[in-house]
Amino acid sequence: MAKNTDPHSTSSQTDQWKKNKPMRVVVLGGGFGGLNFCLDFQHEDCEIVMVDRQNHHLFQPLLYQVATAGLSAPDIAQPLRSILSKRKDVRVIMGEVDKIDLDGKSVQVDGRALDYDFLVMALGARTSFFGKEEWREHCLGLKSLADSRRIRSVVITSLEHAENENDPEERKRLMTMIVVGGGPTGVEMAGALAELTRRVMKSDFRNLDPTECQILLVEALPRLLRMYSEDQSEYAAEKLRGMGVTVKTESPVSDVGEGWMDIADERHHAATMIWAAGVESVPVIRSLDVPMDKAGRIEVEPDLSVPDHPEVFAIGDIASIMNEDGTPVPGIAPAAMQMGKHVARIIDSDCDAGGVRSAGERAKFSYFDKGQMATIGRSAAVAESMGFRFNGLLAWFGWLVIHLAFLVGMRNRLSVFISWLWAYISFKNGARVIATDEKGESINEG
Amino acid sequence: MAKNTDPHSTSSQTDQWKKNKPMRVVVLGGGFGGLNFCLDFQHEDCEIVMVDRQNHHLFQPLLYQVATAGLSAPDIAQPLRSILSKRKDVRVIMGEVDKIDLDGKSVQVDGRALDYDFLVMALGARTSFFGKEEWREHCLGLKSLADSRRIRSVVITSLEHAENENDPEERKRLMTMIVVGGGPTGVEMAGALAELTRRVMKSDFRNLDPTECQILLVEALPRLLRMYSEDQSEYAAEKLRGMGVTVKTESPVSDVGEGWMDIADERHHAATMIWAAGVESVPVIRSLDVPMDKAGRIEVEPDLSVPDHPEVFAIGDIASIMNEDGTPVPGIAPAAMQMGKHVARIIDSDCDAGGVRSAGERAKFSYFDKGQMATIGRSAAVAESMGFRFNGLLAWFGWLVIHLAFLVGMRNRLSVFISWLWAYISFKNGARVIATDEKGESINEG
Repeated sequence: MAKNTDPHSTSSQTDQWKKNKPMRVVVLGGGFGGLNFCLDFQHEDCEIVMVDRQNHHLFQPLLYQVATAGLSAPDIAQPLRSILSKRKDVRVIMGEVDKIDLDGKSVQVDGRALDYDFLVMALGARTSFFGKEEWREHCLGLKSLADSRRIRSVVITSLEHAENENDPEERKRLMTMIVVGGGPTGVEMAGALAELTRRVMKSDFRNLDPTECQILLVEALPRLLRMYSEDQSEYAAEKLRGMGVTVKTESPVSDVGEGWMDIADERHHAATMIWAAGVESVPVIRSLDVPMDKAGRIEVEPDLSVPDHPEVFAIGDIASIMNEDGTPVPGIAPAAMQMGKHVARIIDSDCDAGGVRSAGERAKFSYFDKGQMATIGRSAAVAESMGFRFNGLLAWFGWLVIHLAFLVGMRNRLSVFISWLWAYISFKNGARVIATDEKGESINEG
Repeated sequence: MAKNTDPHSTSSQTDQWKKNKPMRVVVLGGGFGGLNFCLDFQHEDCEIVMVDRQNHHLFQPLLYQVATAGLSAPDIAQPLRSILSKRKDVRVIMGEVDKIDLDGKSVQVDGRALDYDFLVMALGARTSFFGKEEWREHCLGLKSLADSRRIRSVVITSLEHAENENDPEERKRLMTMIVVGGGPTGVEMAGALAELTRRVMKSDFRNLDPTECQILLVEALPRLLRMYSEDQSEYAAEKLRGMGVTVKTESPVSDVGEGWMDIADERHHAATMIWAAGVESVPVIRSLDVPMDKAGRIEVEPDLSVPDHPEVFAIGDIASIMNEDGTPVPGIAPAAMQMGKHVARIIDSDCDAGGVRSAGERAKFSYFDKGQMATIGRSAAVAESMGFRFNGLLAWFGWLVIHLAFLVGMRNRLSVFISWLWAYISFKNGARVIATDEKGESINEG
């Protein structure tokens, strides 16, 4: 049976290189970093094991469109098995990583030991509440398909209930949506919610007017999109206001409860509260005894290896590393993809060199910043690349093209393209569907 | 506020006709029957209230393809609000029907009274276990999007676990799928499971060979598709066997437990057990004090009204009515649609006539049988229409065209067409995605 299922199996590198037994490279996480590593790395001495708790690679940049019923879940996800089905040297295991034993060179997946010679940790981030863990249960995050479906379900169900509600206070609560975090995710989410309520569902109801929905975008800092130039921030804020979004900057969240949120010491009641204010490493990473920052990102060596563990790498959102100019490498898809490719080259060289080299002997990672872009709404987006700044229709169109290009799988590209084209022409979203279970509870949806 | 929310509001028809207050027609259920009634019925004296526990009209004939990851849930569902958004005389309420008070001319929706002048009951059927209610928890039904997602999730998760399982017995159980019921749903489901495992997922795994999955199609009667001619049944059985399905006729299910099923006194262990053996009326209908058959179908008058309640109609799967030739009108979409249109005409005439007429004064419903068809697999289907019988590629192509034509919404037609075309060319299904929740439990999917 598969070696990984034998807890007693051991692997001493020297042995292996002598006996020419295959080296095992274990990859934790099938996101942009982990998947791109797998696609780039292939070595006759190595077998690869990819572990993910989901059965699919998720295209996170479009998650907010599943949440706002613009796309179906399968449009932005692709089974890892089918992406890697031609790679006979790669095994995919769907399972939860319980424990990582750096000294024992072994990870525990659903209670089973899986030994490694090289480990690539690409487990990504989860929503961070900056220590206020008690807020988590009251807010909706946006990191997984389950999250996006939950948001869709809450938004649509709240409006359905508002349609039948007499009490004006409760109606107002049901029709209020708060998005916390003025970064790209928050801006895109707020814009998409505005379009959903103001345009898509405009004529669907009889007792309520969806255009009366109150959508708040809340940011603690003085401006939205702080990683963009000021004029871009201003453009985004104006666009959003024009779409009916209430933009509140310099408005920190002071407290959160069931159905309410204190923003700048003013209490707001809302049925939909989405938290897009920050991320942190998943607990299994935070529990490691390695140098990390407040958000639990591992402070990696210049080659992306973990200090004192040259056979272990941390890439993507769980890696903390600086650019030449002292700015941090951002936690975005392109950075994770570049890290995956970089580690692929390093392990390949190590194998050719016949052993694990020290961090110092290896090539340093340097992030090539292709730029950044965020969409706000129909024909409106901001983009900055190679010193160029543009917004409006051109930026929006560029956003569409680039996101289509990076989607995994032709079928998904086709499906997403048609959904977008249809929505653009018809002003309707295609996936405004929530399934209610036999028992009546609604299901996080797709 | 809306009249329906006032429990004390009463409605005496004579009053209303005198005062010309609008008559209220309440429609329970947005399936084929209820939706087609709404689309056909419009009268200046009437307001219509459509009540459904889901927010969407579901195209049930394609549900098995969502279950087997061929289609996304939103492809076969359309929000009732958007279908009816142009009809200002129609209000849609998303809610559960708790109680129907025929004498008080009122229904209770999520605890609120909703009075009616005319009532159209089109609540459809649920999976029936023929009195063995204790089997329900162990089997997967196929009546809602939630059901279809649950099946997809169980099938894919079972294979994922089998990939990592050492114990041969448990591996066999995880790779065994039982479909109970040799009707069109069972045949289509078994065929789709065979294609999913034998073709779509063929090269996805490393430790297991999905073509070794055991798929059982179980029928208590001597042949499949008993409502078709014998040669068609034989064609279907042979095709399924050719696809690797074990067809067991004359094999009644004697007992069911968690993960096992006794079929013809032989115990089979299976991770996936799908029940497509029969349907019955939903409990709220069964609780009514009106004449009904064993399955809880109301024995309606020739005009589809409920005995002694000429202002109340039962259509679709909850109506029991015979054809001229003494055969029962089948519980299929075309019959439900025809019933909806028929009741639309009757209520329209009643309104013109200025009052509720007796059943005898009204036109009798007669079912026009356009024929029936079931798909078995790639390029294989059976069809019977107007005395013609055909199968194979022609029947399969006819099935595709007709199902596309009856899908609600151009966008869904386009999306389904592309999914089918893609699957046909690439031999791959597009929606092999299941979302696992933060807490780890997998979510019924789509």
